[in-house]
Amino acid sequence: MAASVDGDRGGSAHLLDTAQAEVVVGIDRLFEQHLTVPADPRERLYQAMRHAAIAGGKRLRPLLVRAAGDLFHVDRSSSLQVGAAVEAMHVYSLIHDDLPCMDDDDIRRGKPTVHRAFDEATAVLAGDSLHALAFEWLCDPATHGDPFVRGELVLELARAAGPAGMAGGQMMDLAAETSHFDLPTVTRLQQLKTGALIAFSVEAGAILGRIPAEGRRPLRAYARDIGLAFQIADDIMDVEGDEALAGKALHKDDAAGKATFVTLMGIERAREQATMLVDQAIAHLAGFGEEAALLRAIAYYVVERDR
Amino acid sequence: MAASVDGDRGGSAHLLDTAQAEVVVGIDRLFEQHLTVPADPRERLYQAMRHAAIAGGKRLRPLLVRAAGDLFHVDRSSSLQVGAAVEAMHVYSLIHDDLPCMDDDDIRRGKPTVHRAFDEATAVLAGDSLHALAFEWLCDPATHGDPFVRGELVLELARAAGPAGMAGGQMMDLAAETSHFDLPTVTRLQQLKTGALIAFSVEAGAILGRIPAEGRRPLRAYARDIGLAFQIADDIMDVEGDEALAGKALHKDDAAGKATFVTLMGIERAREQATMLVDQAIAHLAGFGEEAALLRAIAYYVVERDR
Repeated sequence: MAASVDGDRGGSAHLLDTAQAEVVVGIDRLFEQHLTVPADPRERLYQAMRHAAIAGGKRLRPLLVRAAGDLFHVDRSSSLQVGAAVEAMHVYSLIHDDLPCMDDDDIRRGKPTVHRAFDEATAVLAGDSLHALAFEWLCDPATHGDPFVRGELVLELARAAGPAGMAGGQMMDLAAETSHFDLPTVTRLQQLKTGALIAFSVEAGAILGRIPAEGRRPLRAYARDIGLAFQIADDIMDVEGDEALAGKALHKDDAAGKATFVTLMGIERAREQATMLVDQAIAHLAGFGEEAALLRAIAYYVVERDR
Repeated sequence: MAASVDGDRGGSAHLLDTAQAEVVVGIDRLFEQHLTVPADPRERLYQAMRHAAIAGGKRLRPLLVRAAGDLFHVDRSSSLQVGAAVEAMHVYSLIHDDLPCMDDDDIRRGKPTVHRAFDEATAVLAGDSLHALAFEWLCDPATHGDPFVRGELVLELARAAGPAGMAGGQMMDLAAETSHFDLPTVTRLQQLKTGALIAFSVEAGAILGRIPAEGRRPLRAYARDIGLAFQIADDIMDVEGDEALAGKALHKDDAAGKATFVTLMGIERAREQATMLVDQAIAHLAGFGEEAALLRAIAYYVVERDR
């Protein structure tokens, strides 16, 4: 994906690398603190949560919380705390999606999946535990002093996680193996499955900055576009990517006969569509100046993860 | 269980029946409203949630929210809304606990379990969806006007559901099949697995009534005692009960060689212990008058569910 690359990418790439490195370290530190292994029969449960949560992934969602929070001068410790909650929610969904009764995956983030490294029951409970912890961390007074802000975060995260968000999207994804979905249905599926949590991550930064719902509209539009671009890039990676770099099994959609952006549009049109969405996402940030440079850099990054 | 039965039980039994009938109807009505089946590929997910959630169980937890809320003149629609959230959390835990990789149960509340009536993937996602919905309903402004109150409810429910509550207790319960647990460990297991959510239910009534943490102490003590009495009665029912009345498979602990209150104490001492806990729970309510009659009636009820 190259169309949108321009002269100032060197600077924004540096900005992105620096912020991402800080977020990766910060999230691991919070997970270490929050997931101390108890000396009782729950030890295995905590080991399983740590296996899945610590030292893994690119922390895109916490990076988005920070980038959006920075626009409104949100305290970095607040945006990191919310980032840990949203990442816990994401990790829980990966653990459950990988289960034998779901996508039956053996490798995730370059390591054995939780049900392979431990067992299925432990994987179900590690996911359930991270799901509850996400809400606990979000509603902790340490996250934000204002209970209105914490309440709004919980309500939005619950919507993004539930049957009208992530869980509903995964249900549609399972149905995609037996039904032939058209492009609007696949778009809706992905808006629920991955888009809702990405949108929450961006919006959370604005909620922390006490921006009312109307004022968050450009950020929601940005999030919708990068969420879809992200998923198209994922579908392209499933066809063209390198399993070692991706850290997970690829070429699964095709084997399952599942409709994806690539099977529905063809790989060239899918690539163009992703690039168009990135440009459009960046256009939604026109009202912001230099302070949105990180959000712009992330928009390019979501379609170039496989590089 | 008969020791605590006394002359005024007729009146309190009537009080209990009336309140329980109202709560059962109210919870079903809220579930019907909240779980409208969408005309899209998520239909099966909603059908599975409805199968598990509607027209099932004795709604003990919502009844406790209402009984505790009544002490402080809490609006009944608020306590019912919180009751629906806590019941959704309870139903999610039943769905996941029944999975083949966990307790592998075929019957629950007299109906096929969700993974039997639907399939395993749908059961995992129906549980995950109800888990998220519990937080969504709790944090809805319709639950309570004050964001402090909603925030405190979310924080306490998240703790009761996570690795230091229900999910942690279920993990210990799985370990109980291979380790030999002593009485303090089995007590701790049950305090997490069932006690935490029962304690939340009682405490939620007081939180809705804006009672500060110190003032909730007698209610927490009451909840701790009835939670344990409830579990001891459950262990007795597993040995002596009628599967048709219980609506689930029994005699499973013994088959699994699991330590329970009955195997550790013997059935007679377990029965005495449950009666003692009920009396003790009622003693914690000494500071309340006639307004606590329903909580007292529930204390008797938790050990007599199999009658």
